[in-house]
Amino acid sequence: MLIATSLTMHFDDVLPLQSGASIRDYDLSYETYGRLNADKSNAVLICHALNASHHVAGTYAGQDRSEGWWDNMIGPGKPVDTDKFFVIGVNNLGSCFGSTGPMQPDPDAPAGSGKVYGADFPVVTVEDWVDAQARLLERLGIEVLAAVMGGSLGGMQALSWTLQYPQRVRHAVVVASAPNLTAENIAFNEVARRAIVTDPDFHGGNFYQYGVIPKRGLRIARMIGHITYLSDDVMNEKFGRTLREPASKATAAAQGRPKQGTAPSGGSAAHAVASVGAYQYSTQDVEFQIESYLRYQGDKFAEYFDANTYLLITRALDYFDPARRYGGNLSQALAGARAGFLLVSFTTDWRFSPKRSREIVKALLDNNRDVSYAEIDAPHGHDAFLLDDPRYMGVVRSYFDSKVASPTHRAGEQSS
Amino acid sequence: MLIATSLTMHFDDVLPLQSGASIRDYDLSYETYGRLNADKSNAVLICHALNASHHVAGTYAGQDRSEGWWDNMIGPGKPVDTDKFFVIGVNNLGSCFGSTGPMQPDPDAPAGSGKVYGADFPVVTVEDWVDAQARLLERLGIEVLAAVMGGSLGGMQALSWTLQYPQRVRHAVVVASAPNLTAENIAFNEVARRAIVTDPDFHGGNFYQYGVIPKRGLRIARMIGHITYLSDDVMNEKFGRTLREPASKATAAAQGRPKQGTAPSGGSAAHAVASVGAYQYSTQDVEFQIESYLRYQGDKFAEYFDANTYLLITRALDYFDPARRYGGNLSQALAGARAGFLLVSFTTDWRFSPKRSREIVKALLDNNRDVSYAEIDAPHGHDAFLLDDPRYMGVVRSYFDSKVASPTHRAGEQSS
Repeated sequence: MLIATSLTMHFDDVLPLQSGASIRDYDLSYETYGRLNADKSNAVLICHALNASHHVAGTYAGQDRSEGWWDNMIGPGKPVDTDKFFVIGVNNLGSCFGSTGPMQPDPDAPAGSGKVYGADFPVVTVEDWVDAQARLLERLGIEVLAAVMGGSLGGMQALSWTLQYPQRVRHAVVVASAPNLTAENIAFNEVARRAIVTDPDFHGGNFYQYGVIPKRGLRIARMIGHITYLSDDVMNEKFGRTLREPASKATAAAQGRPKQGTAPSGGSAAHAVASVGAYQYSTQDVEFQIESYLRYQGDKFAEYFDANTYLLITRALDYFDPARRYGGNLSQALAGARAGFLLVSFTTDWRFSPKRSREIVKALLDNNRDVSYAEIDAPHGHDAFLLDDPRYMGVVRSYFDSKVASPTHRAGEQSS
Repeated sequence: MLIATSLTMHFDDVLPLQSGASIRDYDLSYETYGRLNADKSNAVLICHALNASHHVAGTYAGQDRSEGWWDNMIGPGKPVDTDKFFVIGVNNLGSCFGSTGPMQPDPDAPAGSGKVYGADFPVVTVEDWVDAQARLLERLGIEVLAAVMGGSLGGMQALSWTLQYPQRVRHAVVVASAPNLTAENIAFNEVARRAIVTDPDFHGGNFYQYGVIPKRGLRIARMIGHITYLSDDVMNEKFGRTLREPASKATAAAQGRPKQGTAPSGGSAAHAVASVGAYQYSTQDVEFQIESYLRYQGDKFAEYFDANTYLLITRALDYFDPARRYGGNLSQALAGARAGFLLVSFTTDWRFSPKRSREIVKALLDNNRDVSYAEIDAPHGHDAFLLDDPRYMGVVRSYFDSKVASPTHRAGEQSS
């Protein structure tokens, strides 16, 4: 069993941000798994998505249920094999799992005031996160990454690495991601943000000093997220129109779900047409199982996730758009990439659809890059990237075994 | 030009509801267009969807911008031709446009208290609405409908008419509808309801007596609705990733939209990759056009729509499921229908997808019913049912001209 330890690196120097602002005196939380080899050529950086952290793999000593969010993917003998690779997970700036974020003291506040950043935490972008990750790697003595890998927003970071630091990354594994968000995705983010910002307990982002948390808004944000991470089909398969169970039973079922995302387990499958019990005819009580599932997920999320972090991270998603400065021409935008690429998408992912991954594939091929692409026929929607599909796992394993582990493709060098 | 007049019918008698509760001393608001013919055989009932009303066609005398929500479909010379048909629009019980609803005085409250129903308004279902509509038609002297027609939730009412009153309806036109909601649709409804119910200004549904309106929740509910009424493609076409305009300009653009639903006009088309101006790097301000559009729509809706009505109507959507009492067997559920049917769906409608309409078609064919079905290739998502697609309009026109206007298919009689 892989035992993980959360580490922290402090940075005194100033990190300039894309917005023109900067951040100083910040911490990054990170974890590492496996051993860095003698020539430091086996490092793999894992980038996280919206609500995850640097705790990517393994479990914390003495703590049950503390598995990393990609523990099925990363570890000894797993597709990203920590017997071969030195894997690094890092919590992004602005997040709420250890790295400096809105809940931490603002160094620009009057001394002794203890004021936290709150709404004053600067807007951070995918590019800023990559810059911060690059500095962490420098401190760890890692010049070149064997690979950078991530799903969803994490995939955006992996892609951005190949553009910002083309000489420092040999391979990029971009899973269930996109070259930018569609209007629909921005719209879902915006509704979630409005729910948080208009919660009277938000206090313009400075709720900490009032001793409250905008839980109503966070709950709504999380419920919207859950709906969009799943496919219509898997929601029908899992919940259908089945009526509520007694509260205790529903809670137990809901607790069996993964830490990040909303992946349904195989448990209490219910078909769309199943109908047991009688309607209670209420507009406010839970009537359908899907309702108690969403309420439970919303409640849980509101307990641990920071509201300002939610705003920051969804904004980073909205802003990412490497083709923007090229008038929307993604092929031009990716011309500077030198890495080898594996892209993976999932057929029922309507939030980051295969079409979006294919846009990246096409733009890379326009530049004669080395690209592997797998479109996995999976029913689970966007959440599929966190789940154990054997074809998905097989594709990643084989890419790491045959390409990343091989020294033939060097960073900054075109392979063709 | 068709001039419309809003009428009201009062009902003293008790209407038993599906929940076991009942309602008494209620009003129904309605409008009629065209003339009932001598043998009263040309009546067409139009059922409305979530946020619409009995004002289906025409305009109110002396009022600009008062067009009915289906004015493109219904009127002199239009697909449902009021020169031939006597068309009736009715506002459903529990709505907020004239018929008795949560904002009206509760007859069971202590005399003189003036207490409105509020949260005590009974839960109403599609079946209850149909019962109320049937009583209205009796009062109007209409024994048999030439047709009943509706889109979305209105289509559910049209379908239910053929099951509850098979002898009283010759044709049913069911547009962009479904035999029940999927789990995903229930989920979106639930998030919207939670946003309303958890708004501190909701006061358990009795906000009227506090002189406040749960506008925060209504805004969120409406924003979610708008996203799901549009297709991803049309949202990209219309808004893409275009940045905000100055406030005045954005408002003017938004005001050009239809009364019900969210149909984009052809106006300021912007491609997904267009990028003008610079990011302002803010988590709370409007950055993208899609955000100002959604905020505007949310604000407008919160001004006129009743929060309790929103709960009631989304619940009626959730509950509708004629196959439920047949263990999910839709063919058995529709065995009692005698009407001729026209079903219409739209390819990009992901909320009431063509697949759901095809389920109804199949179940009707299993019972050897007369069914016409048109799947319209339209980009506009669910909103397409309110828009002017020439093929859509043509299909409806030809169905009314050739089938509804013809006396060959009598109510309660199988045509084959």
